Amino acid sequence: MRTFYNGLIRTSHIGKNVSLCGWVNRRRDHGGVIFIDLRDHTGIVQLVFSPENKFIFQKASQLRNEYCINVLGIVNLRPIESYNKEIESGEVEILCHELNILNVSITPPFNIDDNNILENTRLSYRYLDLRSSKMQKNLRTRYQVTMEIRKFLDKLNFIDIETPFLTKSTPEGARDYLIPSRINIGNFYALPQSPQLFKQLLMISGFDRYYQIVKCFRDEDLRADRQPEFTQIDCEMSFINEEEIRNLFENMIIHIFKTIINVNLPNKFPTITWKESIDKYGTDKPDLRINLELINITEITKTSSLKIFSDIALNNGKVVALKVPQGAIFSRKEIEFYTNYVMSYGAKGLAYIKINDIKKGYEGLQSPIVKNLSIEELNQIFTKIDAKNNDIVFFGADKESIVNSYMGALRLKIGISDFSKRNNIFKDQFCPLWVIDFPMFEFDENKNKYTSIHHPFTSPKQSIDELRDIKPDSILSKSYDLVINGWEIGGGSIRIHHEEMQRKIFNILGISNEEAHYKFGFLLEALKYGAPPHGGIAFGLDRLVSIMVNAESIREVIAFPKTQRAQCLLTQAPSEVEKEQLIDLHINISKNI
Amino acid sequence: MRTFYNGLIRTSHIGKNVSLCGWVNRRRDHGGVIFIDLRDHTGIVQLVFSPENKFIFQKASQLRNEYCINVLGIVNLRPIESYNKEIESGEVEILCHELNILNVSITPPFNIDDNNILENTRLSYRYLDLRSSKMQKNLRTRYQVTMEIRKFLDKLNFIDIETPFLTKSTPEGARDYLIPSRINIGNFYALPQSPQLFKQLLMISGFDRYYQIVKCFRDEDLRADRQPEFTQIDCEMSFINEEEIRNLFENMIIHIFKTIINVNLPNKFPTITWKESIDKYGTDKPDLRINLELINITEITKTSSLKIFSDIALNNGKVVALKVPQGAIFSRKEIEFYTNYVMSYGAKGLAYIKINDIKKGYEGLQSPIVKNLSIEELNQIFTKIDAKNNDIVFFGADKESIVNSYMGALRLKIGISDFSKRNNIFKDQFCPLWVIDFPMFEFDENKNKYTSIHHPFTSPKQSIDELRDIKPDSILSKSYDLVINGWEIGGGSIRIHHEEMQRKIFNILGISNEEAHYKFGFLLEALKYGAPPHGGIAFGLDRLVSIMVNAESIREVIAFPKTQRAQCLLTQAPSEVEKEQLIDLHINISKNI
Repeated sequence: MRTFYNGLIRTSHIGKNVSLCGWVNRRRDHGGVIFIDLRDHTGIVQLVFSPENKFIFQKASQLRNEYCINVLGIVNLRPIESYNKEIESGEVEILCHELNILNVSITPPFNIDDNNILENTRLSYRYLDLRSSKMQKNLRTRYQVTMEIRKFLDKLNFIDIETPFLTKSTPEGARDYLIPSRINIGNFYALPQSPQLFKQLLMISGFDRYYQIVKCFRDEDLRADRQPEFTQIDCEMSFINEEEIRNLFENMIIHIFKTIINVNLPNKFPTITWKESIDKYGTDKPDLRINLELINITEITKTSSLKIFSDIALNNGKVVALKVPQGAIFSRKEIEFYTNYVMSYGAKGLAYIKINDIKKGYEGLQSPIVKNLSIEELNQIFTKIDAKNNDIVFFGADKESIVNSYMGALRLKIGISDFSKRNNIFKDQFCPLWVIDFPMFEFDENKNKYTSIHHPFTSPKQSIDELRDIKPDSILSKSYDLVINGWEIGGGSIRIHHEEMQRKIFNILGISNEEAHYKFGFLLEALKYGAPPHGGIAFGLDRLVSIMVNAESIREVIAFPKTQRAQCLLTQAPSEVEKEQLIDLHINISKNI
Repeated sequence: MRTFYNGLIRTSHIGKNVSLCGWVNRRRDHGGVIFIDLRDHTGIVQLVFSPENKFIFQKASQLRNEYCINVLGIVNLRPIESYNKEIESGEVEILCHELNILNVSITPPFNIDDNNILENTRLSYRYLDLRSSKMQKNLRTRYQVTMEIRKFLDKLNFIDIETPFLTKSTPEGARDYLIPSRINIGNFYALPQSPQLFKQLLMISGFDRYYQIVKCFRDEDLRADRQPEFTQIDCEMSFINEEEIRNLFENMIIHIFKTIINVNLPNKFPTITWKESIDKYGTDKPDLRINLELINITEITKTSSLKIFSDIALNNGKVVALKVPQGAIFSRKEIEFYTNYVMSYGAKGLAYIKINDIKKGYEGLQSPIVKNLSIEELNQIFTKIDAKNNDIVFFGADKESIVNSYMGALRLKIGISDFSKRNNIFKDQFCPLWVIDFPMFEFDENKNKYTSIHHPFTSPKQSIDELRDIKPDSILSKSYDLVINGWEIGGGSIRIHHEEMQRKIFNILGISNEEAHYKFGFLLEALKYGAPPHGGIAFGLDRLVSIMVNAESIREVIAFPKTQRAQCLLTQAPSEVEKEQLIDLHINISKNI
């Protein structure tokens, strides 16, 4: 039915008879001739229906946008004055001598390549939205990424093994999606939050090198970049260490960026510890495109004459400075904006100093706090942060976690949204790095117990003997996150492969022996039979592709995403079901619990 | 940590220093020396620990089955008298000078390659069972099949697009697995029974050539070859016809069999209509390895002097003969067995004639019914079925569906289980065929309405105008099933792409406009916007791989299958969940509905 794709026809095809299929993108009647832009996923070609062939011409005059048609015709060179430089087939057109209308269309609610459509409208008519060149490109890029990853891993003897979707509920952190069992009344399956335990079981089964590109599910309250179902590139290996895993998957990411979007990532990604990342950037997923760092001045400010600094510095708080070179040009309005911005992150205010002329002392500085600081202290600070004329310095002072949060956010805000736009430094720039040596645990004050920062199967750096004499807060894990431009793209760890260590970690987490047995008995049992040392990593495919195609939301790289209320606007899922279905499952809905 | 895989070491490596990892498959102490069979997924190599190196030797003496170890050693030629021809590395052994015990093992419940373990035990310790060479091979073959399919489809411009798992419940035929929504109280998602509607929407979206290797879910009462979750190779194309689809995927199957298991399937698969298949084989998934056919003798027996034949033949019933060449040797006991066998399929008995000497008339025949048949009638039958001396002929007579069922079963039983075993004709024989032109509908007498034989989105052969004047029973569909050795491996159809036709089919199925709108409104709406002609196919991956590795059950090619009660014996899913989880979901269990 088709001999060529529309977007691929060129002058080299001139004189050829072609059969084309596609959709009417636009129709123009000009000088008694009908011109049709015929679209398929490769692009557009111009069809010409001249009035000489009356029968076909009359048929063509019925054509409207989004009609699906098949034409036979001859490839012709266009007159030079009607070359269309905006499309790749713009030097040719098809003189048509046959037209089959395969299907008609009512008037679509929007034009296919209109970029100003409300997202809810796009999602309600997703089948039309997906016809756009942007969505075609996004989903094809997504496919190319997965296929290239498969080939890469295949060469390295990884094999794809499917793990179950109907699994056991072991909620940790996020909520499980539950599925009532009809045969085993009162029992539930859960959709996997990740195939973590199954991939570890596969290592114990001797499968050595596993991967899977697989859906995972978390019933969370949704944020911009979360979906109830998301896709993970899930990998695991036996008989390796952290560095070997990082090297292998770093090469995979380099390969993907090069082959799919022709971007050269650095040969070797920088590696920084979690502690260093928090110190310098206030976050464990720093955006290294931004050339700004937080500088800890807590020690200096312990003796500050500014009471707010010294109080915090002396009481386990943290005081940091963020120097923005050339930032003295920020207007009062901009500074006010940044102040409100950090206050939305919990800051009580935002102190700053504009340095107009550093040699002039107080005279050369512009600041609401500078009068409370001695010249010696100012000099100490300026030396520490290497301040220069025309810089602005912002200060954060509070409990450590609060300071990290708002000063990290400020660094990003200044770096990405505003300052950089003026300088346009971010186009096609990708800054990957590994963040390593995360703490094993953090103390959850609400629950009054330790929780895992990665998950309870992550191996600590310390041996089981060393764990006896050390506070949980000080235990580091053999873990690593891959961060690109401030997005956590992947994360993994070496896993625990000794039963005794696994029990010890459950113990620190306050999981009783009974609970451990009920939830994870099969893992503890499996660890008794010669489990090999193993580790792995999982990448978020939606995020990886989003960053590669420069999408604003992961919904732009998913064919049929859910809204933030976890609904599909196209099919209206979730929906009510028939009474008989619930009776079969022995469940009732109780709306007023 | 590892320089070679164990099973791949050969005499060409002699003298090399190697570092190996794996599991202790067996330990023998012989002549003061410790021999270890070290296993990984590639096979086994023999390690030697001599008492000269006391420290290592003592460590080696701790080794037990399934200990996980790493050794350093040198590859040595074995003395010729201790060559082991059963393993591929049997001419070499590793003289070890370092041993790291990576993990110990308690005594496993069974030896890894023992083939006589109860399936429930294997499933409870699946991580040990998967260490066996059989399961390693099965899952690796499964991977190779999927990877080769991906490469094949990639070359033909198919792209893999993920469709949602949290979808809308539209139960048709099988029950849906439901997932209560926490955010949208009282509403449910359903796990997809197949991505049928989403792949059609992708065609409407202009994606042209789609595939996905994807889990599907059906909450059915389980039979031997069903799992609650199973994997489909799901494909769809636009702008093609039935024959093009069959050709393309026939080539894919030929390619897979050749590349993965080196089997040459026929260049062109035979194609038979559904009607012909039912007539000749009593089933729409015939096993063509069996060279036996049912022959319809209803016409002849309408005037039979055997009342049971003529009564059935004259009252819309069916009378068939199954001739088994050389079958006259069947013993009385065998015939009794077959009689009981067909009775379990609803037959009331099993008439037969053994032909000892066809020229002798009654004298030459052995049969309980022959005396009631005239010589003329016998001759007519024998001519029709081309009977010869030493044949046995079985007769079936009943309502058509019953006769098809039990005579089809008898054909299979005689062909596969018994007669063929004597002749051993089935080893590595694969007989694929396409069954086409299925009826669109069958009448469900319980529900007193028509139901779809494929699904309601299948295109009929007839045009919408033709449908007006024709009974639903006579409507054929543009559908095709791929059958290999009696297993339905794949099935598909051309889909409806006109809204009016889709409404008409819903109408015949007794689906009201309201119900159609509620369940399939999005599809009907999408069909209004220039939907292209399209069609596709889906293959059952579990079955395809099972047949390729000659597995007795699809559980043998699934890493973590469920039992027939839909339970995972390893993790104990499904299980009870915490009260808080149900409160979050606003659901109650009512055990006594």
